[in-house]
Amino acid sequence: MIQRPRGTRDFGPEEMRKRRHVEEVMRDAFHRFGYQEVATPTFEELELFTAKSGQGIVDELYAFEDKGGRKLTLRPELTAPVIRYYYEEMSRAPKPLKLFYYGSCFRYDRPQKGRYREFWQMGCELIGPDNPEGWAEVVAVGVSLFRAVGLKNLTIRLGHLHVLKGMLDHVGVPEGERGGLMRLVDKREIAGLKAALAERKVPEAKVHWLLQAFDLRSLDQLATHVKDTNEKARSGVEQLRLMMNALSALGVPKEMYRIDPAIARGLDYYTGVVFEMDCPSLGAEKQLLGGGAYDLSGVFGGEATGSIGFGLGFDRTIVALEEEGFAFPTERALDAFVIPIGDEAREKGLALATQLRAEGFMVDVDLMRRGPSKSLDYANAHGTRFALLLGKKEIERGVVTAKDMKKGEQREVPLSDVPEVLRVAEPWTKARAG
Amino acid sequence: MIQRPRGTRDFGPEEMRKRRHVEEVMRDAFHRFGYQEVATPTFEELELFTAKSGQGIVDELYAFEDKGGRKLTLRPELTAPVIRYYYEEMSRAPKPLKLFYYGSCFRYDRPQKGRYREFWQMGCELIGPDNPEGWAEVVAVGVSLFRAVGLKNLTIRLGHLHVLKGMLDHVGVPEGERGGLMRLVDKREIAGLKAALAERKVPEAKVHWLLQAFDLRSLDQLATHVKDTNEKARSGVEQLRLMMNALSALGVPKEMYRIDPAIARGLDYYTGVVFEMDCPSLGAEKQLLGGGAYDLSGVFGGEATGSIGFGLGFDRTIVALEEEGFAFPTERALDAFVIPIGDEAREKGLALATQLRAEGFMVDVDLMRRGPSKSLDYANAHGTRFALLLGKKEIERGVVTAKDMKKGEQREVPLSDVPEVLRVAEPWTKARAG
Repeated sequence: MIQRPRGTRDFGPEEMRKRRHVEEVMRDAFHRFGYQEVATPTFEELELFTAKSGQGIVDELYAFEDKGGRKLTLRPELTAPVIRYYYEEMSRAPKPLKLFYYGSCFRYDRPQKGRYREFWQMGCELIGPDNPEGWAEVVAVGVSLFRAVGLKNLTIRLGHLHVLKGMLDHVGVPEGERGGLMRLVDKREIAGLKAALAERKVPEAKVHWLLQAFDLRSLDQLATHVKDTNEKARSGVEQLRLMMNALSALGVPKEMYRIDPAIARGLDYYTGVVFEMDCPSLGAEKQLLGGGAYDLSGVFGGEATGSIGFGLGFDRTIVALEEEGFAFPTERALDAFVIPIGDEAREKGLALATQLRAEGFMVDVDLMRRGPSKSLDYANAHGTRFALLLGKKEIERGVVTAKDMKKGEQREVPLSDVPEVLRVAEPWTKARAG
Repeated sequence: MIQRPRGTRDFGPEEMRKRRHVEEVMRDAFHRFGYQEVATPTFEELELFTAKSGQGIVDELYAFEDKGGRKLTLRPELTAPVIRYYYEEMSRAPKPLKLFYYGSCFRYDRPQKGRYREFWQMGCELIGPDNPEGWAEVVAVGVSLFRAVGLKNLTIRLGHLHVLKGMLDHVGVPEGERGGLMRLVDKREIAGLKAALAERKVPEAKVHWLLQAFDLRSLDQLATHVKDTNEKARSGVEQLRLMMNALSALGVPKEMYRIDPAIARGLDYYTGVVFEMDCPSLGAEKQLLGGGAYDLSGVFGGEATGSIGFGLGFDRTIVALEEEGFAFPTERALDAFVIPIGDEAREKGLALATQLRAEGFMVDVDLMRRGPSKSLDYANAHGTRFALLLGKKEIERGVVTAKDMKKGEQREVPLSDVPEVLRVAEPWTKARAG
């Protein structure tokens, strides 16, 4: 039997209700900050992703050739596509541009718990500003998205690539010799990192100094640690300080974030402040969001423009909310389920359902030609408020038998009164009072 | 420079507002009929689409092999994936299953006006019922989607594959010999069809009779036309008659639809009633929706289950609405744009924006460190209601200078009164009265 491809998922109604809810709430949060949605194609030219990250990334991509021999790939992330779109169509628009997106991305790796080959990202790019209030806003937008959906446990880690790169300069590993080193730092693979540093003949004292830095949690400690290194590292600390002031003004409390000098980000286009947000209770899969300031102008031959953004792991956010016991909206109960009894009632049943839908009610009608008792079971399973039974005797007298599924009570209602019955919360009581 | 792949599109903010609006309205219309959303992966096993349609379809697909040598393809449509999901996970769920979906699909063909390599489909599958009220409901759901979004011009064409196949039997072209013939019928390529029939030695009188049938518009005419053919064709006419009665009960007026015996549908899994909906003003690109009753059980080795659905061309629906001059929702205007003047005002500006956002307002703040007059231009370009200027003198006195962007009037407002000013429609008048 043909099955879904390995490492992918189908989403059923319950899952989709959760996802659409979170999607809508987050979209609204973006709008509140003046961000506007854009969308780009599901596949892109392969070069868009190899230009900055090198051919090595191809192993992780769903790359393919079309029949014209063009090298294409399913997108692994959405920042490069959005910036491609910006350079192609929007580079003359007044700044800042505040763009957000939501879509699926693809990575070719071994499927494992919580990691899928198709996964969803929501994120934004702020193009134009290159200053602490711009950097801080993007962090605050990320926080506001999680707050808006009701996530309780959230911590932020802040870093700066000037600090990390300045420290690597300082220990004697300059730009050209870093190779896979940034990835080892990013993944906190301390043993591998030690080996790589030893290979590059970094003295043990400096290795120790570097690893010490990675454990620092406050900006003051970090400032002291890099005081005697170089201008690059010190400028990074200074920018972090200014950003943290702006974060306070934006209502992100100090208790929510800490410094993490080891954030390198996986992709190679980040240049300035970087940040990651975690839901600590998720353990190894705790990271929900990552972002930073970057420069993709080289890829497009365009002018360098301040740009900063983040990508939020949508699937993992849903998991985090589930773990916190979040009360997702449940299936909106049907207002009524119409049950025609016998062949002659069938069209009358459709007409009644149609009339009620036109009045704005959510209504379903038996389409399986089942008997009343099976139909009542089906209505019950879908949390229907009222079953409306319509047989020959009801039709003759212009009524339906309305059954309140919660109370189990039923009574005859003139056809013209059905909307009123559905509208009021306690129909029987009201009807009696009237 | 790297560009978007040929035949694909980027969607900017204005376009996305239109699309999200239509998407949301249609989703709500589905819910009203008790349909629930599902989603499937962007790519599937190639076999899912070749099993029923043959290898010929591969030329139109974005098919590729993954590194494990699995043959995959970007989905060309969503019915087969949804039914795959049904057989894989939901086949034991109580019937009927009422599922809808929204997502992009892919076809590899020459890009041309209005046809893109990635395009969006919204659609549904009703699984379980195999009776006139079930078939009619799906047609009525399609109509209700277009009505809900406000499309004015819509016509429906109804056909039945029993009628078409019965007529082909009658002229002497049985099942095994139809080859590309169904596609010629579907595309109304009369010359090609005549040639194909001549090749099969169909007598001219029967060709004439068949082509006459394709011009019939009323069910009574069709019934007369096939009266002396075979049981298959007559049963199709009878089913159409029952469905049309149910359509009337469901509020689809007779003037909206007509018979079209030449609907064959491109895909090879349709078996019963088929239908297409058009926006006539779009000319050659008029078809917005197509669907019908089908059987995919053979592909999955599962039990045959009544199923009927449709796919709606989302992109073309947007074009149709644009052509009709539909008033899409415009950008929701920012309630306020905060303009800090001078360095010392910057953090106060962020704090004010944060406070207003927390009260539910849509607020932006200058992130470009521009002077007030350029910032006012930017605020104006985004249709902002109020500019809130905050300089040293305002901070000292605990006020902002609020400028009503529409009227051009400005005055000082105590910081604590800003939310009230944003809340009332005519702030100055109210404030004066108060």
